[in-house]
Amino acid sequence: MTTELLARREKLLGTGAPLFYKEAVNIVRGEGVWLFDPDGRRYLDMYNNVPCVGHCHPHVVEAMYRQASTLNVHSRYLHEGVLDYAERLTNHHAEELASIVFTCTGTEANEVAMGMARIATGGRGIICTDAAYHGNSAEVGKLKRARDGDPEIRAIPYPQRYRPLREVASESELTDLYLSEVRRAINSFAANNIPFAGMLVCPILANEGLPNIPNGFMSQAAEIVRDAGGLFITDEVQAGFCRTGRWWGYEVMDFVPDIVTMGKPMGNGLPLAGTVARTELVDTFRDQKRYFNTFASSPLQAAVGMAVLDVIETENLRENVAHVGEYLRAELTKIQPHCPPMAEVRGHGLFIGLEWVSDSGTKTPDREGATLLVNRLKEKGFLIGSAGSLGNVLKIRPPLVFTREHANLFLTAFAEIVEEIYGTAP
Amino acid sequence: MTTELLARREKLLGTGAPLFYKEAVNIVRGEGVWLFDPDGRRYLDMYNNVPCVGHCHPHVVEAMYRQASTLNVHSRYLHEGVLDYAERLTNHHAEELASIVFTCTGTEANEVAMGMARIATGGRGIICTDAAYHGNSAEVGKLKRARDGDPEIRAIPYPQRYRPLREVASESELTDLYLSEVRRAINSFAANNIPFAGMLVCPILANEGLPNIPNGFMSQAAEIVRDAGGLFITDEVQAGFCRTGRWWGYEVMDFVPDIVTMGKPMGNGLPLAGTVARTELVDTFRDQKRYFNTFASSPLQAAVGMAVLDVIETENLRENVAHVGEYLRAELTKIQPHCPPMAEVRGHGLFIGLEWVSDSGTKTPDREGATLLVNRLKEKGFLIGSAGSLGNVLKIRPPLVFTREHANLFLTAFAEIVEEIYGTAP
Repeated sequence: MTTELLARREKLLGTGAPLFYKEAVNIVRGEGVWLFDPDGRRYLDMYNNVPCVGHCHPHVVEAMYRQASTLNVHSRYLHEGVLDYAERLTNHHAEELASIVFTCTGTEANEVAMGMARIATGGRGIICTDAAYHGNSAEVGKLKRARDGDPEIRAIPYPQRYRPLREVASESELTDLYLSEVRRAINSFAANNIPFAGMLVCPILANEGLPNIPNGFMSQAAEIVRDAGGLFITDEVQAGFCRTGRWWGYEVMDFVPDIVTMGKPMGNGLPLAGTVARTELVDTFRDQKRYFNTFASSPLQAAVGMAVLDVIETENLRENVAHVGEYLRAELTKIQPHCPPMAEVRGHGLFIGLEWVSDSGTKTPDREGATLLVNRLKEKGFLIGSAGSLGNVLKIRPPLVFTREHANLFLTAFAEIVEEIYGTAP
Repeated sequence: MTTELLARREKLLGTGAPLFYKEAVNIVRGEGVWLFDPDGRRYLDMYNNVPCVGHCHPHVVEAMYRQASTLNVHSRYLHEGVLDYAERLTNHHAEELASIVFTCTGTEANEVAMGMARIATGGRGIICTDAAYHGNSAEVGKLKRARDGDPEIRAIPYPQRYRPLREVASESELTDLYLSEVRRAINSFAANNIPFAGMLVCPILANEGLPNIPNGFMSQAAEIVRDAGGLFITDEVQAGFCRTGRWWGYEVMDFVPDIVTMGKPMGNGLPLAGTVARTELVDTFRDQKRYFNTFASSPLQAAVGMAVLDVIETENLRENVAHVGEYLRAELTKIQPHCPPMAEVRGHGLFIGLEWVSDSGTKTPDREGATLLVNRLKEKGFLIGSAGSLGNVLKIRPPLVFTREHANLFLTAFAEIVEEIYGTAP
């Protein structure tokens, strides 16, 4: 069955269409935090952030059905539901972030954000980190390929405590070290006569591997960017919608950006994303670009997005994430002394990164070890992934409805695998 | 109500979020070819190509509900439904177009196509027309702004009979005239040391205003492009899925492109798009780009896309489009002698363009007249739009389930308005 599917897939989608795990999983059904294969075998989903309120949540599915049965059309007619959703969503943001451009994908939201910053500032230069991923389009993809030397992009080394750019004496010096990289990038744009537009980062540096970010880096970087005439954009495609135990990653970092992009969990799987900003930034963008997106800002997107907010609020998912996330990190930290390769337990809320190394002294990244863990956990029925610029960070990021009981199932399996591989029992 | 909605919309979505008609319409419900406002007033939808099998078609809505209740997850697990859909869809294409990259929007499909052509050829230069629109991203947007002088883009004057680039003696000379523009663009890339990647056009030149294209232009242009080492891409976002009475616009033009992009009608409103190409082109693209799109290639997209194919096939919509489209064009042509500004009745299937001029001798485009017609028709309960580089082409493009009876309702209203404005009764 799997072999046949793989062969058909290679022909129809092309060889190299990405697949997870050494032996791919065939998934036919989802419910809450569980995924099922055709034989009825269940997997605890600890990877998927898109179905944030759980796979196939009935309230979201019903809202989708009701709206799809009533009206689903583009946004050049008036529709109250779209405005109700825009209002409710922006109300979850800082007060000044009051207007929104809806899109279908996070890539498109970051396209809008980059365009918005460039139009508002008249600049072109954008700063990102050296392990960023913000989307698959040619323009947004430049952030990933910053080292290729695109003149309008500068990548700073991503700020972190574990493998600092240089050894320094204190936390505040570490912060300053990375802030000086932001200043250096701004100066480099100036030296090359490229007017500065802003900085775009994930506020919790998810793809970078969820490093512990030196205190105050994000808020101070935003000030430096603004002082230089730029705008600060946070990409909340992964960090947003209560993933961290706060509504937005920028709250965790204790500052308010100028522009915020959102995506993945926003529609629980329906393509739905958007860019929130101060109203005058959205107005200027609309005025210059006449942006239109056929499937975006639709009654269907609004109804489904609204249902996701309903569930997050009525099921107190933000609080659940904060509590279960803290519990899971604490329990993993207890295992740490018995598991030499697990150098750090990091993250926020239900987004946990485990730094995997082959030598804790040299901090040598152990990508193979991380891959082994991911695949052994899959065999035991637990789906996680890996992340980080070195591919050696275990990524644990379940739907927000993940409970303490689910965490305990995982912790037992995790300890067993650690003992099996490393011979050390917690 | 409308005033209040407009004020809320300006605040939440920004001033300048595009709206149709001098007085915007508030739409709350859709069914088949009908749209309804909150007072129950109905409008015959002759604009919307996205809900191709009709607004809220129960078979499509049920398929969406069933799949959303069962599983909706990203594409890095195996899923038979996605492959079944890919197979059925590619089977509707020319045999060699056997593999697909799914995306969420037409913009993304054109991003993929441009990337695919550039990777396969090693080139960068892309030819489009001077009135093209292929999407809203920075990269695809360059095709719209070709005249801004991006070194990697060349726009040729779009081929047409009505306002030819130069008066020539015969149809074949006219074809040659425009083909020489393709050669000139290729030579210009060569002269600037920009390796050539290919040509991207809508096969029926929809945004250009559905001109009558000189015979053989598309197929001969494709040969010229290939002889120069490039690939020929057709953007079937508007032309595809039986809109023209054929499955694809390239069939109307009697040739097979190397890469085809699809979008709008593909999911009847669910964000669903894709790029079909020869397998080796998809393989090379996958290999180089490791393309991944979170919401694309999902079980939900596949189930909904499959249901759209079901309806097109079981309700014989291709045949319906061919017959009703021919009838509507024929009846409009009968009105033409009584309507001096209607200089041409053009198009294919249920995609009709009416060239509107203030003087048939000078062929002066009458954008204001076209706008007046569009708005008067709206007031009478008929929704159409306008198109073309000069904005003076009435665009008639109803859902594919549009019947002869619907056409008659429109023809009566259209004749009345023509008499009212121009004082000439058919």
